Amino acid sequence: MSFGHLIKLSLFGESHGPAVGCVLDAPPPGYSLDLEALARHMARRAPGQAGPWSTSRKEADAFEIVSGFYQGKTTGTPLAAVIRNTNTRSGDYANLAVVPRPGHADLTGRIRYKGANDPNGGGHFSGRVTAPLTFAGGVALQILATFGIEIHARIVEIGGVEDRTEISPLQGLPDISSRPFPVLDEAVGTQIVAAIDAARRSLDSLGGVIEVRATGVPAGVGSPFFNRVESRLGAMFFSINAVRGVTFGDGFAASRSRGSLNNDPPTPSPDGSLAHIGRTSNHAGGAEGGISTGLPIIARLAFKPTPSILQEQQSVNLETNEKTPLSVRGRHDPCIVVRAVPVVESAMAFALLDLMLEHGCFPMTPA
Amino acid sequence: MSFGHLIKLSLFGESHGPAVGCVLDAPPPGYSLDLEALARHMARRAPGQAGPWSTSRKEADAFEIVSGFYQGKTTGTPLAAVIRNTNTRSGDYANLAVVPRPGHADLTGRIRYKGANDPNGGGHFSGRVTAPLTFAGGVALQILATFGIEIHARIVEIGGVEDRTEISPLQGLPDISSRPFPVLDEAVGTQIVAAIDAARRSLDSLGGVIEVRATGVPAGVGSPFFNRVESRLGAMFFSINAVRGVTFGDGFAASRSRGSLNNDPPTPSPDGSLAHIGRTSNHAGGAEGGISTGLPIIARLAFKPTPSILQEQQSVNLETNEKTPLSVRGRHDPCIVVRAVPVVESAMAFALLDLMLEHGCFPMTPA
Amino acid sequence: MSFGHLIKLSLFGESHGPAVGCVLDAPPPGYSLDLEALARHMARRAPGQAGPWSTSRKEADAFEIVSGFYQGKTTGTPLAAVIRNTNTRSGDYANLAVVPRPGHADLTGRIRYKGANDPNGGGHFSGRVTAPLTFAGGVALQILATFGIEIHARIVEIGGVEDRTEISPLQGLPDISSRPFPVLDEAVGTQIVAAIDAARRSLDSLGGVIEVRATGVPAGVGSPFFNRVESRLGAMFFSINAVRGVTFGDGFAASRSRGSLNNDPPTPSPDGSLAHIGRTSNHAGGAEGGISTGLPIIARLAFKPTPSILQEQQSVNLETNEKTPLSVRGRHDPCIVVRAVPVVESAMAFALLDLMLEHGCFPMTPA
Amino acid sequence: MSFGHLIKLSLFGESHGPAVGCVLDAPPPGYSLDLEALARHMARRAPGQAGPWSTSRKEADAFEIVSGFYQGKTTGTPLAAVIRNTNTRSGDYANLAVVPRPGHADLTGRIRYKGANDPNGGGHFSGRVTAPLTFAGGVALQILATFGIEIHARIVEIGGVEDRTEISPLQGLPDISSRPFPVLDEAVGTQIVAAIDAARRSLDSLGGVIEVRATGVPAGVGSPFFNRVESRLGAMFFSINAVRGVTFGDGFAASRSRGSLNNDPPTPSPDGSLAHIGRTSNHAGGAEGGISTGLPIIARLAFKPTPSILQEQQSVNLETNEKTPLSVRGRHDPCIVVRAVPVVESAMAFALLDLMLEHGCFPMTPA
Repeated sequence: MSFGHLIKLSLFGESHGPAVGCVLDAPPPGYSLDLEALARHMARRAPGQAGPWSTSRKEADAFEIVSGFYQGKTTGTPLAAVIRNTNTRSGDYANLAVVPRPGHADLTGRIRYKGANDPNGGGHFSGRVTAPLTFAGGVALQILATFGIEIHARIVEIGGVEDRTEISPLQGLPDISSRPFPVLDEAVGTQIVAAIDAARRSLDSLGGVIEVRATGVPAGVGSPFFNRVESRLGAMFFSINAVRGVTFGDGFAASRSRGSLNNDPPTPSPDGSLAHIGRTSNHAGGAEGGISTGLPIIARLAFKPTPSILQEQQSVNLETNEKTPLSVRGRHDPCIVVRAVPVVESAMAFALLDLMLEHGCFPMTPA
Repeated sequence: MSFGHLIKLSLFGESHGPAVGCVLDAPPPGYSLDLEALARHMARRAPGQAGPWSTSRKEADAFEIVSGFYQGKTTGTPLAAVIRNTNTRSGDYANLAVVPRPGHADLTGRIRYKGANDPNGGGHFSGRVTAPLTFAGGVALQILATFGIEIHARIVEIGGVEDRTEISPLQGLPDISSRPFPVLDEAVGTQIVAAIDAARRSLDSLGGVIEVRATGVPAGVGSPFFNRVESRLGAMFFSINAVRGVTFGDGFAASRSRGSLNNDPPTPSPDGSLAHIGRTSNHAGGAEGGISTGLPIIARLAFKPTPSILQEQQSVNLETNEKTPLSVRGRHDPCIVVRAVPVVESAMAFALLDLMLEHGCFPMTPA
Repeated sequence: MSFGHLIKLSLFGESHGPAVGCVLDAPPPGYSLDLEALARHMARRAPGQAGPWSTSRKEADAFEIVSGFYQGKTTGTPLAAVIRNTNTRSGDYANLAVVPRPGHADLTGRIRYKGANDPNGGGHFSGRVTAPLTFAGGVALQILATFGIEIHARIVEIGGVEDRTEISPLQGLPDISSRPFPVLDEAVGTQIVAAIDAARRSLDSLGGVIEVRATGVPAGVGSPFFNRVESRLGAMFFSINAVRGVTFGDGFAASRSRGSLNNDPPTPSPDGSLAHIGRTSNHAGGAEGGISTGLPIIARLAFKPTPSILQEQQSVNLETNEKTPLSVRGRHDPCIVVRAVPVVESAMAFALLDLMLEHGCFPMTPA
Repeated sequence: MSFGHLIKLSLFGESHGPAVGCVLDAPPPGYSLDLEALARHMARRAPGQAGPWSTSRKEADAFEIVSGFYQGKTTGTPLAAVIRNTNTRSGDYANLAVVPRPGHADLTGRIRYKGANDPNGGGHFSGRVTAPLTFAGGVALQILATFGIEIHARIVEIGGVEDRTEISPLQGLPDISSRPFPVLDEAVGTQIVAAIDAARRSLDSLGGVIEVRATGVPAGVGSPFFNRVESRLGAMFFSINAVRGVTFGDGFAASRSRGSLNNDPPTPSPDGSLAHIGRTSNHAGGAEGGISTGLPIIARLAFKPTPSILQEQQSVNLETNEKTPLSVRGRHDPCIVVRAVPVVESAMAFALLDLMLEHGCFPMTPA
């Protein structure tokens, strides 16, 4: 089902069907979109990257915008994009309908859809459907940028190898989107790549943690309870495949702190306006009472290791109801966390755009 | 705004206004409600408890059901309940409109609502609004119970004092709702109470972690992406005041695991039905691909320390825009985690009931 | 279920239960509400009026606002109101559970809710639930009025007696809310009252048509397809009990016209702005392509005759499944159209407020 | 924005853009779709028909299903379809951005979208977007048919020429979808075609009335107030371009009737079940209290004459703000009512499918 209140996102498509795509219903009218920048954004998620983390499936992830875009700008009516699947090899999945992959949606999806869903490559459950999510978020990122809002993510940890680089929570993350590997400490990056390669060679997979920050979101966005910033972003983040945990600000560390340490004391406003009152710290990660403070909104997402691994696992043959060893074929990422970095940025961008439209933060059209 | 797809929950009320309450639109018809059990459930959340963790504000939290309940059963039309506020002392909050409490919604709420919201006791931001949420969840719990679904929560950790009792993730939690302190290891409970009392005496506050498990949820509930079990529950959990993190199953630990360890291998079905295929482990916490596996759904929630503390803090006088020390008066819990236990169970129950109604898991009426 | 995108309305209550009421989630903050004017607005709908059209049930329809209203203004958080039922006589309805009233929801409601709904006085199906709708619309009317938007309705026809007074569709309707009978031509009003009285004396009932107009709605509100002005208002109007038809502008007469006559030619803008371009006619009734033109939005609603009539009718005994004559007791309006006039205004006001909030027509707070 | 609660429909596309299309999110899994029947259904709406009513634009309206359909069946995941635009001539519309067509969305759309929308051929406001609506409804019709639900529409009146054929409201309409002209009385059909041809030759256009009936909908579907059958269908019907009025059952005639005549007396159930209790008449048009009775659901829709006419009209030059005569070029239907017949059936089918899914009327999958 769709996501969003004032701009709704519908995703469609299966991994090995004709196409994946999305409808954004609808971005505000009159915003210019830089399609080349959008393509570069999507390339960060696309498969076939030159690293050990990536599946060997090659997809250019070329999008065609079929509506809602006219003379270089959003029209304000539904924006739809179609991304053709070109490099499908469904034969790889023939036996998964009978022997489900542990940890994957093969079995639960079959129960949910009474066997009618397309199982090839995970079908609609595939990480491939994050391609149109990345497209949608890329559009949102460009609209948000016109208001000075920036969203950047980074890998914090993979396979237990941690990047301990400290960035003050009063600041955003630097833009490392053009780096080959999205980690702040490049030496740690090298270690992580090695760890992924080792996992790949042992036919296994790794998980990890991504941090994302949005800067420039004005104070006063969000509402108590079901529309708290954390609730809206949390719903979106948990929509991303493989996410097992989401925290804001100090997260679980906050639960071990004390009020006197965890509260972020306000500081006088440089211009006297309430909206620009600062804080001496940002343990809260950008929201108090579910409403943005104007400080960076900071979240961390835990990703589980890719469930599709090449080493033999125990499963059950659904026809015989007997234990069966399973060796997964097909092309899989030994660690999806790397390619998930732009997905996380995109997810946050879309959810924030929706929340801000609801608050009238944007003019209906750019100046 | 409301929560839910097939049963919507609207919460209303301010801490020091005439009443708080809710509308459930609408529970399925014909379900008996045990109002005494509901009152006991709500008493676990009510203020004025005999422990150092609780505010001294006394509220019976007596609910009046004003619609949707007839001859002891749900009617299928909107069920509304009103809980009067009886023990309000708004004078305590007179200065908070001028000098906001750090970490609280005093400032962000004022920005959000342009100063029109009721600031007394936190107004609509108050934890008091979890009383009708607990009512709504209590109704959901009783409906779910008729299908063998049980939800129990426990305190895992407060102020860094941890209850290390191991309960297999293939099982639910025991029902400890009648215990005076909702922790499995009562010795740890004693330590926690002491820690809270020490924090209270030092005019400070503590946070903590709650674990919640639902058993009996059938396999096949949830949908890919925006209606994943984790997305729907995550949105609900992050709606609870003070929650800074939510995890499912192994959570952040999963991000440090490997696919070969983290995947939960299926086991043959005792009765041959797909829905009853088991798993040898439950690292996933009850959902694969966003869809329930039939195993316990397990989540953990991190709560920050209560922001309202009695010791002096730095704030800003909004009239003069100058740094100002603030000593919060009023009656506050030095640790809201204890009273939050039934809130978490209630939140999970409501979100699961909604999700299951959407899936047609329930007959429109009980047998 | 609730109505609205940016402000949601939940209605609750049964005719003979403790109370009816509503939650508005949420009006924009900072709007003053004149509670006396609101009470006068609701009195126009209240039962027990001094005319032959009205049931003899006496209800002051006194509302209590229990949240969302502080220091005379909307807070921006959910506004809830409770209206107690005081004059209930459920004994009148004892046999309707067995022998349903023709044309009423007694039978369909029983099927829908498997017999669990409260049948007394129609339960949640009762016209009594339009009391909180009138409250909600009364709030919306006051907010809209601050922007110069006015909504007035009138009786056009009852029992075939028609008020042929012509009011140019380029204008709104006059405010006749203080008249004892809401019709423009008072001589026709006298005839209508006589017709209702005759129907009442013959133990029968009458239907009729109400016209409603909104002036001051700016051009540019609405969206193609599912959020057309007519779609949003149509959904709301058909939510009112007994409505069997809804038209906009020339309605069915437009279907017999020709493009050359039915199109409304634009006229130059007095100030040069596109939004103030006029039309020489208003056959469209205020919307082109589903989007407001700035001209009056004009609708007509057809109401069926009250199904509850005192003369004997044929029904079926649900226990024996045999034909049974039924004489309805209880207190019923022989024509609900008169009391429906403020309901129609209220319904339109709420739906327009929601639509305009979605379009950012309003500042979050008044100047 | 999307339509639907349990199955959401998003429409996208502009008349002269690359494509129009839709996402159905999501049909229940496992339903076979007959794509040839679907193509025949869509051909009834497609332009370029061999009659004077139809634009000369030729579009095969060939749809490509790009997701949600596997091995001949619905998968239960989002079903997306793309219909390419092939025969566009945007040059025809060059001047409409400056001199808007009276009665069309040229002006209101420009105000709504601040000039950013695609004006060619009406852009997203075009009747062309009813092609994907017809697709979506065609899918719904096939699913409904598996439960014995049939929906058929007919032309009742065009240009004042009326088909007075009486069909008992206790019955559905016959299937006349294979007739060249969708009217019951073929002699009247001939007159109507002549009237349309005359209007066309005088460079003018006609409107008309369509009746639609659904049979086989079980009793008990719908809910009081905002989810009344009439409210849900009304919202959908008013979403169709050019609809100015919607009635159910006797519609405006009911407002001139009396309760004793308008009520539909129940008759004993042939099998004793409440759901099969009949009525001796069906003035209500299939719903009492907003809930289906099990009798045919009957609605009538009034369509205004096509606003795009070839004869000269008065408009305003938006650049000079001066009165300007306008002669519309482009290819337009002199009467869209004929091609709207399958659109109305489709709209009703989709809205009913959604409503019935919400009520659990369907098994998640076919037997």
